[in-house]
Order: sequence, then structure tokens, then C-alpha cells
Amino acid sequence: MTGWLRIVGLGPGAEGMVTPEVTGVLAQATDVVGYIPYVARIAPRNGLTLYPSDNRVEADRALHALTLAAAGRRVVVVSSGDPGVFAMASAVFEVVEPHPAFHALDIAVLPGITAMLAAAAAAGAPLGHDFCTINLSDNLKPWATIERRLLAAVAGDFAMAFYNPRSRARPEGFGRVLDLLTRTCEPGRLITFARAVSTPDQSLRTVTLAEARPEMADMRTVVLIGSSATRRAGPWIYTPRGVA
Amino acid sequence: MTGWLRIVGLGPGAEGMVTPEVTGVLAQATDVVGYIPYVARIAPRNGLTLYPSDNRVEADRALHALTLAAAGRRVVVVSSGDPGVFAMASAVFEVVEPHPAFHALDIAVLPGITAMLAAAAAAGAPLGHDFCTINLSDNLKPWATIERRLLAAVAGDFAMAFYNPRSRARPEGFGRVLDLLTRTCEPGRLITFARAVSTPDQSLRTVTLAEARPEMADMRTVVLIGSSATRRAGPWIYTPRGVA
Repeated sequence: MTGWLRIVGLGPGAEGMVTPEVTGVLAQATDVVGYIPYVARIAPRNGLTLYPSDNRVEADRALHALTLAAAGRRVVVVSSGDPGVFAMASAVFEVVEPHPAFHALDIAVLPGITAMLAAAAAAGAPLGHDFCTINLSDNLKPWATIERRLLAAVAGDFAMAFYNPRSRARPEGFGRVLDLLTRTCEPGRLITFARAVSTPDQSLRTVTLAEARPEMADMRTVVLIGSSATRRAGPWIYTPRGVA
Repeated sequence: MTGWLRIVGLGPGAEGMVTPEVTGVLAQATDVVGYIPYVARIAPRNGLTLYPSDNRVEADRALHALTLAAAGRRVVVVSSGDPGVFAMASAVFEVVEPHPAFHALDIAVLPGITAMLAAAAAAGAPLGHDFCTINLSDNLKPWATIERRLLAAVAGDFAMAFYNPRSRARPEGFGRVLDLLTRTCEPGRLITFARAVSTPDQSLRTVTLAEARPEMADMRTVVLIGSSATRRAGPWIYTPRGVA
């Protein structure tokens, strides 16, 4: 048996957003590796071993998956959303880089519907013009980098999508982000809080920057910040294609 | 018959990247509206009317689709990639906004695999950390806005994805973009030219900024610019999850 590794995205939650090519490799897999709630989305079957693991062990998980594939297994690493957006693909390549033995492995990344695009679709088209995508977690980068990127995004008048805005371990950061935006953007700027998009728990709420509160976000929320041009069209939010 | 409008993304080209929910609404549609090459991807069948139209008539196309849905038809507007990323969703809401009669229509946007994420997956994970997404066409915005956003993206040390980098009608702009990057970034910055991703014509080429030439891009190309941290891991390109 020739082993391979596929790093796949399961989309934000709805089964109707899992691409057929991802469903196809899952049907051929001998092993599925990933964070507990994502592996829980994979139906057990004979011949398939599931390896759920906890948060914050991405490097160990990547090494485990690569080792299985090098031993001849057909391994799928699952992420929610898209594996290349704040998910497992970078973690795998961080482990591949210093291990030349892994450079000849059959590895491929299969894209998925990332949370910000599912959230934008649910709201209308707030990311319909130039935008920035920023991870607000400071677990792996200094807070100063986050502030520098926020200020650059404001200076460029980009729309923005924030991943990981707020968690129990990081309750304070998102308030600082809203403070920074309040100092640099007009109070009527539109902000959409999209929680658990495409799942039965989905909720969507659009407010102005002046109305936004840190408690409106949690770890299941993606936050979409409009550019200065983002506006309402009936019940929908969108950013026009043109800039005057 | 109660009409509805679905604005859907067909992904970058491969049928294996079309989501099941998009396939599902196409099966229920009475009418499909879109740019000629995207409508050409929809199989004809009895009871389905196809309305292909040319480029640059997005507002007319949107009004046509909304009018059909208001008359009770089940209408799908097709885009390639994701409909909310430089595609038809914003064009539809631009027409909805000034027409209150359309505000109560049953409209939904169904996300798709956008070209930059398929391109990033094909290369590895170059968008694995904070990134900006910029449309380089100046058809609908002044060139000064493009330059302002490029400079902001460089100042924030974002990775970048460029849509519509170069066309026969706009042969000069992308050279100016490379000049701007050359003045502001180190010459070893990694740039991936991803053409016709996921189709039989796919080609992928990664060079340094010093080696990049305008002719490496055309209208079927997405260009991915690394951040200062983007690097190689064997044959793959990726951006690490952390910032030191």
C-alpha cells in the first residue's frame, strides 16, 4: 500500500457544504486525524481508524499524521472550514519543512468553505470588495502584530474578517480591537457577528460600530467589519463592487 | 409558484469542488443566469432555461434575474469561485438596494470555493496566516485606491491574493504592482502564479519577487504574494501559524 496524506476542509458545519472531492478521499482513507469536534463529524466504518486529539497539539497531530502516511497508510487530516485558513495545513508544513524524509510524501491540500465566506454569504456580500482576514488570537503572535495589522487594514479601508475574536482564555483582546476601530473608523461602520454559521445554532447580528460590544463575540463567532462603503440593501449587508 | 433567487458559486472549475447544496438548487431551478463561460458549465435539461450573458453587463444581468424571481421563477445566478468574492452577489445587492419591491424576495447566497483558496491549497498553505484579498482591476475603482491598499497590505506584512491581475484591456497595471512591491519588500519574497486552478489547464509557478515578470500573469491567473514569513517546505509553499 502506498501511503498518502490529504489535508482537507469540512466547511463550516453543514453537510451540504462539504465538497465531493473531500467526501471522496474520506471514503478511501484508512485513518482520520484531527481536533475532537471535527473528527466527530466523520462517520465510523470498518477499516477506518479515527484519531481525535485536543486543541493546542497541532504539531504533535501533524507529526502523527505524517508518520502514518510514511508507513503506507491513507491519512486524512480534517479541519473545519478551509484547511489553509488558520487551520491544519500550515501546521503540517511546519513539521514537513525540517524533515526531508517527508518531502517526497504524496501530500495534497483540499480546500473547503471557510467560515468567513459562509458568514458573508449568510449576511449578503459584505466581503464583496477588497478585504483582510485576520486571526485575533495572540496565542502564536504578539499583540503588537495584531494591532499593526488592524491599523494597516483601516488605513487601506479594507473590509475585514476576524477569526478567533474571543475565548474564555482571551476575554480582553476583542474589546481592545473594538476600541482601536472606534478611534479610527466612523461610528456607523457596519459589523456583523456570525455565530456557528450553517449549523442549527446559527445566529447572525449586524450592528454599527457604536453599538458593538465585546460580549457579542465568542469562540464560535466570525466577525465581519465593513469597509467605509459597506451598506444595507433591505435585510442584506453588502459592499459595492466599485469605489467612486 | 413562489419565486426565489439563489446566488451561487461553482468553485474554480473542478466538478469535485461544487458543493452539494449548490448542485441541489441547480436541480430545482427553472432559470440560470450568468456570464457565458459559467452558464456553459450547467447541463441543459427540460424545464430549465439558460441565460448566458457577456462580461461587463453585471447590473443588467442582476436586474433580469431579480425580475424573473419576482415573477415567480426559481432563479440561480452562477459565478465561478465564491459569489461573494469579486463576483455577482454584490452586483445583485446593488440592484436590490434602490428597489424596495425586491427587499421581500426570497434571496440567498450559497458560498463556493474561491480561486485564491484553491490556488493556496494547490501550492501548500501560503495564506495560512493573516492575508489581504485585492482585485487589481481598475475598471470600477481608481488606480490610487489599488496603490493605497497595496501599501497598507505591505505595511501590515500581510500575505496577499490578487484577483484579475492582468488582462488584454489592462496590460500595464500588474507591472506597476510588481514595481511597488519591489520598492517595498525584500527581493526574496515568494510569489505564486496559479493559473486555471483545478482545471485541466492548471499551472502553478512559484518565483521570488526579483524573478517575477508581468507576463507570468493573465486573466485566468490568481497571484499569491507571501508575507515576509512565507517559506518553502520541500515542494510546498506555506506561511507559518506563528509570528516570533
